[in-house]
Amino acid sequence: MSKINIAEKFSLFESQWTPKVITESNGQLVKIAKGSGELVWHKHDNEDELFLVFKGQLTLQLRERNIVLNPGEMYVVPKGVEHCPKAEADTHFLMVEPASTAHTGTVESDLTVSSEKQEWI
Amino acid sequence: MSKINIAEKFSLFESQWTPKVITESNGQLVKIAKGSGELVWHKHDNEDELFLVFKGQLTLQLRERNIVLNPGEMYVVPKGVEHCPKAEADTHFLMVEPASTAHTGTVESDLTVSSEKQEWI
Repeated sequence: MSKINIAEKFSLFESQWTPKVITESNGQLVKIAKGSGELVWHKHDNEDELFLVFKGQLTLQLRERNIVLNPGEMYVVPKGVEHCPKAEADTHFLMVEPASTAHTGTVESDLTVSSEKQEWI
Repeated sequence: MSKINIAEKFSLFESQWTPKVITESNGQLVKIAKGSGELVWHKHDNEDELFLVFKGQLTLQLRERNIVLNPGEMYVVPKGVEHCPKAEADTHFLMVEPASTAHTGTVESDLTVSSEKQEWI
């Protein structure tokens, strides 16, 4: 394995809300994604989901409050908690989550990218 | 839980090679540390260890090569692989590793901080 330059990885794609896997550690996948606008309300029954923002602003809408993440800020959405990510234009963020995590939980939307289609870059 | 501002967390301590836990996700602890100089050669038989650098330069010395990480760069030291981190003055980095991970593996050095003593900040 080589070292991973995160900015370089972000330069490899433009698509929004399509997580790309950059490495694996202890069964957890590290993914990066770009986002603009809103994804969809969903939850992961068995997986916590860690978010870390690198560029722009990512709002993790929860049912009872919003978590607004700027670059250098992190939040863990606990398993079972409904959330809907919303991003300013061209927001860049990183996620750490188990390989078993479905993109939008049991919700299927036009934006959903199944785990098999989440490519390694 | 509140959001975590990583720079703010780094401002809370000055000590070198003393990992501080900033959050937990799926049984993995997210830790930050500052380093200068060399830690000690060790390995973790059962845990991969993810490193991400925020400031300075961290060299992960492996037996057969060196991985030189600058800000925004990441590397996963696989379980069982001997390594010795070496840092430029006041290097800041983040780690993700299972709660079971011993600081310097089975090696005890003056720099070793046992898991019980790795405080949450």
